[in-house]
Amino acid sequence: MSGRAPDFSLSLRVYYEDTDAAGIVYHANFLKFMERARTEWLRSLGFEQDAIAREHGIGFVVRSAELEFVRPARFNDELLATVRVERCGRASVDLTQNVLHADGTLLCGGKVRVGSVALKRMAAQAMPEPIYLGIRNA
Amino acid sequence: MSGRAPDFSLSLRVYYEDTDAAGIVYHANFLKFMERARTEWLRSLGFEQDAIAREHGIGFVVRSAELEFVRPARFNDELLATVRVERCGRASVDLTQNVLHADGTLLCGGKVRVGSVALKRMAAQAMPEPIYLGIRNA
Amino acid sequence: MSGRAPDFSLSLRVYYEDTDAAGIVYHANFLKFMERARTEWLRSLGFEQDAIAREHGIGFVVRSAELEFVRPARFNDELLATVRVERCGRASVDLTQNVLHADGTLLCGGKVRVGSVALKRMAAQAMPEPIYLGIRNA
Amino acid sequence: MSGRAPDFSLSLRVYYEDTDAAGIVYHANFLKFMERARTEWLRSLGFEQDAIAREHGIGFVVRSAELEFVRPARFNDELLATVRVERCGRASVDLTQNVLHADGTLLCGGKVRVGSVALKRMAAQAMPEPIYLGIRNA
Repeated sequence: MSGRAPDFSLSLRVYYEDTDAAGIVYHANFLKFMERARTEWLRSLGFEQDAIAREHGIGFVVRSAELEFVRPARFNDELLATVRVERCGRASVDLTQNVLHADGTLLCGGKVRVGSVALKRMAAQAMPEPIYLGIRNA
Repeated sequence: MSGRAPDFSLSLRVYYEDTDAAGIVYHANFLKFMERARTEWLRSLGFEQDAIAREHGIGFVVRSAELEFVRPARFNDELLATVRVERCGRASVDLTQNVLHADGTLLCGGKVRVGSVALKRMAAQAMPEPIYLGIRNA
Repeated sequence: MSGRAPDFSLSLRVYYEDTDAAGIVYHANFLKFMERARTEWLRSLGFEQDAIAREHGIGFVVRSAELEFVRPARFNDELLATVRVERCGRASVDLTQNVLHADGTLLCGGKVRVGSVALKRMAAQAMPEPIYLGIRNA
Repeated sequence: MSGRAPDFSLSLRVYYEDTDAAGIVYHANFLKFMERARTEWLRSLGFEQDAIAREHGIGFVVRSAELEFVRPARFNDELLATVRVERCGRASVDLTQNVLHADGTLLCGGKVRVGSVALKRMAAQAMPEPIYLGIRNA
């Protein structure tokens, strides 16, 4: 028993827009799926990024990403995109983000570092305290 | 002999990112090709949109588009995206924009209305006089 | 009293991937939203496009689209993308497809003609009878 | 003195389609820029991927990618996307791929592993000998 919370998970469908001429999901689009999952994960914690931008002038940007493309996803597949917090600092969060087929097969494994920035300057800035605490205590 | 200036034309290459699982360019991407051509056409007239935004707070948005998808484009094809002005008003321009295969075959025919907007309000605003004149006299 | 069935409607969320530097949904992406809605509409009628491709070698392509971009959509907005059949022929269907804000405001109005094609030849071919009837009787 | 050949480099322009509501290039699109550079790099070596697919049934897929997003790119920026071979095996190639501003500033650094696959099975298969030799001797 780990006591660890289960990963956050977003259900997704592969549409034509996501695929390429090799008949599979274009690799860059896995980053889109991971970003959708982060958005919904933040929402699940009570944080709306448009409100955060408006009220605090803070946004989140991807600092780095390590991606393993394990198996292809195809048109019409149902996918799950997950979010697990590995480390939460004041101005950056390390996440494990995977994209799985709905049957549980790992398609793309990712390690993503997201940083908070002052949107006007696009420079690192600590995230608002409630968000920091919300992520840490999630 | 029409006396008409030749259409502006931008050369493009189809990359994997542009295609879908049917093996052809995803239809929405023709709108991207047309927008790239508009950007390069404005640049050819001496107008840089980032400078226009910074100096005048003005941007261009697509008001309407009529698209006929005549033939498919495929991975690695060389394409031409054209711009021809049909009408230029103070706050909007009507363009014919086609995407052709490099061999001259019409792939997608478009009629696009572009409007100038005050970026802060996203509301129609006349374009700066030099741009208006530049487009009219092109 | 029209007796007409209500439009099919798909709920969507605007993610960062959908927006552009003007702070709004990039215009071409409305075509993506409309295509997602068509996919889910066909699914709601019992038709999975990957199965149709596999069993019949038939796919659907967009023949033409008329789009009016009425108001901008923004990051994090909840949208509805609709499908209404205006005419259904043997090898093409005319649809009205709108994208609305969840509050009911029309953002983008579309008239889309979709054609069925033999995927190998990318040439027009009548859709399988059950699909034709399924769409006509929807 | 390294004696090493200079990196292959592709010139790119940032269009509206590439940006997001934070006013910068959407992070996933750096992967698209890198893929365009790989396509043009292969072309510069004499290899057209559509011909390779047709004649050998072989395609290239991204196996893994490590990306550092160092600085943002903005609308209208001129960029360079580079390719340098770090290792070339029979069925995979390790590349360093960077995206730079035209002024030389590093924007995104990448390590990308590309694998050759039999397109029908999407399973690893050695690349055709001339391509292997072409890459090794480049």
